[in-house]
Amino acid sequence: MGFSSRYVQLHGNPLFSQLTAEEQDRLKERAEILSLARGDYIYQQGDVARYFGFVLSGSLKLYRLTQDGQEKVFRILNTGDQLAEGMLFSIHAIYHFTAMAVENTEVLLFPLEEYREVILGNSELSLALLSTLAQMEQDSLETLEILSFKKSIDRVVRYLVGRALSSCSRCMAPKFELPATKRLIASQLSIQPETLSRVLNQLERKGLLLLEGRQICILDLEKLLTHE
Amino acid sequence: MGFSSRYVQLHGNPLFSQLTAEEQDRLKERAEILSLARGDYIYQQGDVARYFGFVLSGSLKLYRLTQDGQEKVFRILNTGDQLAEGMLFSIHAIYHFTAMAVENTEVLLFPLEEYREVILGNSELSLALLSTLAQMEQDSLETLEILSFKKSIDRVVRYLVGRALSSCSRCMAPKFELPATKRLIASQLSIQPETLSRVLNQLERKGLLLLEGRQICILDLEKLLTHE
Repeated sequence: MGFSSRYVQLHGNPLFSQLTAEEQDRLKERAEILSLARGDYIYQQGDVARYFGFVLSGSLKLYRLTQDGQEKVFRILNTGDQLAEGMLFSIHAIYHFTAMAVENTEVLLFPLEEYREVILGNSELSLALLSTLAQMEQDSLETLEILSFKKSIDRVVRYLVGRALSSCSRCMAPKFELPATKRLIASQLSIQPETLSRVLNQLERKGLLLLEGRQICILDLEKLLTHE
Repeated sequence: MGFSSRYVQLHGNPLFSQLTAEEQDRLKERAEILSLARGDYIYQQGDVARYFGFVLSGSLKLYRLTQDGQEKVFRILNTGDQLAEGMLFSIHAIYHFTAMAVENTEVLLFPLEEYREVILGNSELSLALLSTLAQMEQDSLETLEILSFKKSIDRVVRYLVGRALSSCSRCMAPKFELPATKRLIASQLSIQPETLSRVLNQLERKGLLLLEGRQICILDLEKLLTHE
């Protein structure tokens, strides 16, 4: 079975699907698969960056420890997502985060310099990376905007509206699944997990949304946007 | 005089200096120079992205209006900086910010699609863009980390330490100039301008730094890092 056909879960990711058969063969030689249990990490903040990779299954959190020893989650990676794309053409290739599994997780890793050389010879792949980095930057700016709100409810609403609009912009009742546990999402929004639950319940009581575990159904997007 | 030699202020920017003479000639045909007075804008949040460009002189702020009508500054651009790099290979090329002059400012603009085509034919330029986008993403993540601190003093200290380390990592007394007015920097840190001034004065009184207008000299980086 071909290298690519073994990893159907990566076909939606252009950084994998734009690889030619030849490039896949080349990378295959140097590929590693890592199986992680919850709490294992791939690398730690400050390590010299050596790998670029993809999540084959499971889920990872990228976090840093802040000055006061708190864990600050920046991003959550799920199946099909790529890992450490920012390191590929970074001047000082030092991982800025610790990448830790939040459940049983499998990752496919390539040596950074190997994948970098493949990109240099494949302009479609290079374009895919440019567009990925632009999207990442856009996501970070969205999060920046969220964190600029002082009130927790404003942060939660802004987060939900962003998810709802990207899941379905025309649907009368946008529905989506939270991409991680409430605890992780609370950390991304820099609020307490209890605050997130409290705000979500409050919005549900007002009839603006429905909660079912991680499933969220926005019942009234307009009212949510103009919540008080 | 050649196109490139007219703009010495852009020579430090690889997105300009990596252009070949031929590419410069090509872009020159379609280049526009815009002179802005304080308060003028180049484009507004939500506009379809049409230009990529460089700051020839002066200073711009990139901001968004938040839900409650507040201005949230994301980035400050000075002479030599590029503008709208994230739009070059973005899927939906809509400006995410309003770009407004904060003093008399000149910008050099190229049509987005023209510069994009030049990149596609120049792998050094494409690499320069990849590395710029990776750096931008890194800057945004730094700001994200800053905003995750609840206390204003922690935000200010983290900001100062970041600047100090990037200006000179070995110097006993790192010295640097704030890249914008205190009001703009306060907006980036999501704190009040008065709070920024108060915190800076407080750190000066403790002997951790010296202030002279926008010049800041860190006297005790270690104590600053462990401030209480």
